[in-house]
Amino acid sequence: MSLSLAQARTIIDAALAQGRAEGAQPLAIVILDAGAHPVAMMREDGASLFRFDIAKAKAAGALGMGADTRILATRAAANPVFFQSIAAATGRLALSPGGVLIRDADGAARGAVIGAVGISGDTGDCDEACALAGIRAAGLSHGDMQ
Amino acid sequence: MSLSLAQARTIIDAALAQGRAEGAQPLAIVILDAGAHPVAMMREDGASLFRFDIAKAKAAGALGMGADTRILATRAAANPVFFQSIAAATGRLALSPGGVLIRDADGAARGAVIGAVGISGDTGDCDEACALAGIRAAGLSHGDMQ
Amino acid sequence: MSLSLAQARTIIDAALAQGRAEGAQPLAIVILDAGAHPVAMMREDGASLFRFDIAKAKAAGALGMGADTRILATRAAANPVFFQSIAAATGRLALSPGGVLIRDADGAARGAVIGAVGISGDTGDCDEACALAGIRAAGLSHGDMQ
Amino acid sequence: MSLSLAQARTIIDAALAQGRAEGAQPLAIVILDAGAHPVAMMREDGASLFRFDIAKAKAAGALGMGADTRILATRAAANPVFFQSIAAATGRLALSPGGVLIRDADGAARGAVIGAVGISGDTGDCDEACALAGIRAAGLSHGDMQ
Repeated sequence: MSLSLAQARTIIDAALAQGRAEGAQPLAIVILDAGAHPVAMMREDGASLFRFDIAKAKAAGALGMGADTRILATRAAANPVFFQSIAAATGRLALSPGGVLIRDADGAARGAVIGAVGISGDTGDCDEACALAGIRAAGLSHGDMQ
Repeated sequence: MSLSLAQARTIIDAALAQGRAEGAQPLAIVILDAGAHPVAMMREDGASLFRFDIAKAKAAGALGMGADTRILATRAAANPVFFQSIAAATGRLALSPGGVLIRDADGAARGAVIGAVGISGDTGDCDEACALAGIRAAGLSHGDMQ
Repeated sequence: MSLSLAQARTIIDAALAQGRAEGAQPLAIVILDAGAHPVAMMREDGASLFRFDIAKAKAAGALGMGADTRILATRAAANPVFFQSIAAATGRLALSPGGVLIRDADGAARGAVIGAVGISGDTGDCDEACALAGIRAAGLSHGDMQ
Repeated sequence: MSLSLAQARTIIDAALAQGRAEGAQPLAIVILDAGAHPVAMMREDGASLFRFDIAKAKAAGALGMGADTRILATRAAANPVFFQSIAAATGRLALSPGGVLIRDADGAARGAVIGAVGISGDTGDCDEACALAGIRAAGLSHGDMQ
C-alpha cells in the first residue's frame, strides 16, 4: 500500500484544524511517501520562510533514520557529534519533534511505513500533536520502526 | 497583496478538476508566492517522480524570468544557448508550457504578480490549460510581465 | 512488491556477464528502487570516473520521467530545449539508452514499476542490451509506462 | 595497487554474512576506491533511507581525514566545533564507527591506502565489526594513516 493524495489531504486538513483549535503559530506541513518524495504540502499565511524546509527535513529525517524526530532528537542530545554530521551529510534532518512516520493501519499489528508527516511553525510538541491528529483522522497509525 | 493559502487551494482544486475532466495524465501542481517560495503543492497518484520538480521549475522559471513558460520556451527555441545557460545556472527553469504567473485581479488594469502556478504531467498545452482554469477559479488574472 | 537486494544482485551479475560476453568496455551498473534510492551498484575495473554518475542518472531519469532512456533520448532529440532544462533542474537525467524501468512480472499483464537499471560504459545500445539481459535473468519484465 | 571489483565483492559478501551471523539490523555497505569513488554498494532489504548516505559518508570521511571514523569520532568529541565545520564544508563525514580504511596487505609492513569501507544500519560498533570482517576476508589490512 502506498500513501494516496486523498489520504495526504485528509492528514493536512486535520492537522491544520488541530493547529487552529490550539491557537498555534502559522504552520507548514509536508507529507512524503515512503521514498521521501512529496505528495502534498501547504504553508499557512504568515509562516516564516524556513518553515517549509524544516517541515520537509523533519519528515525526511524520520524516514531516513526510521524513527520519529522526537526520538531522534533525544538520541541526538546524547550523541550530538554523530547527529550533526548526519544532518550535514544528508541536508535532510531537523532534530525537533514534529516528524512522524505514517504506518498502514493493519488491525492490531503494526503496519508498514508508507510515508511521513513533517510540521513546523510552533513548538515541537505542538507541531507533533498536529501531525498525530492528522494521521488519526486518516485512519492510519504511526510510530517509529522496531 | 500576497497569495493566500486559501487562494492556492482554490487554484489547485480547480486545476486538478480540469485535469480529470480532460482525462489528463496524473499531474503535479505547485503554487509559489511572489518570492518563489512554496505555498501549496499536490502530486496525483501515479505521477512519475520528476513531475513535482518539473512543476516547481516551471513556476520558479516563470517568476525568475518574468514571463509564462510558454513564452520562455519560444524565446529559448530562438536562443537556446542563453536559456540553457540560465537553466544550468539556476537549476530552476523548465522550458515547456505550464508555468503561469498569477496576477492580482484589479478591474481593468493589469495587476501585480503575486505568485505562479507550475503544472507537469501531461502535454505542456494540457498542463497550461489546467493552470489557467485554476487561476480563473480563484478570481485572479494571469499573463507575463510587460 | 518492492525490488529486493537478491533480485538486484541477479540483475547485476547477469548484466555484467552479458557485457563480458559481448566484449563491452568496463561498465558501471546501478539498481534503484521505485523511489529512486540505490539498492546495489558495481563499477568494473577500468571504468572511467563519470560512469557511475551516468548510470545513476539513466536509472533515475527513467523513473523520474516514467520511460526508458531510449525513448526519452528520442523525445529529447525532437525537443532539446525542454529536456536540457529538465536535466539541469533535476541533475538526474542522462539522455542515452541504458536506463530501463523494472516491472513486476505479472503473467500476461504489465506489472507495476518496482525500480530501474542504469548502465554506462559502452555504447548506449550495448549498455541497454546488458540491462535487458539482467532484468530477464531475474524473471522480471521491463518497458516504459503507458 | 588499486581496489578491484572482485575484492570489493568479497568485502561486501563477508561483511553482510557477519551482519547476518550477529543478527544485525539491515545494513547498507559502500566500498570506495582511494579517490573516494564508489566501487560497489549494497543495501539490505528494510534498511532505512539514509543508511546508504551514512555509509558513504563514513567511508568518504575516513579517506578524507585519513583515519577510521572511530578515531575521528573520538577526536570530534574533544573538538566538536572543528569537526562540525568539516562535516558542513564537505557534506561527506559521518562521525560514528563503521568507516574503515582499506590497506594493501604487504607482509609485515603497513600497506598503502587503497580504499575504504563504510557500513551503517546497526550500532557503530557492530557496523565496524562487519567492515573489519569484510576486509579480513579479502586478505587486506586496515587501520588509520600515521
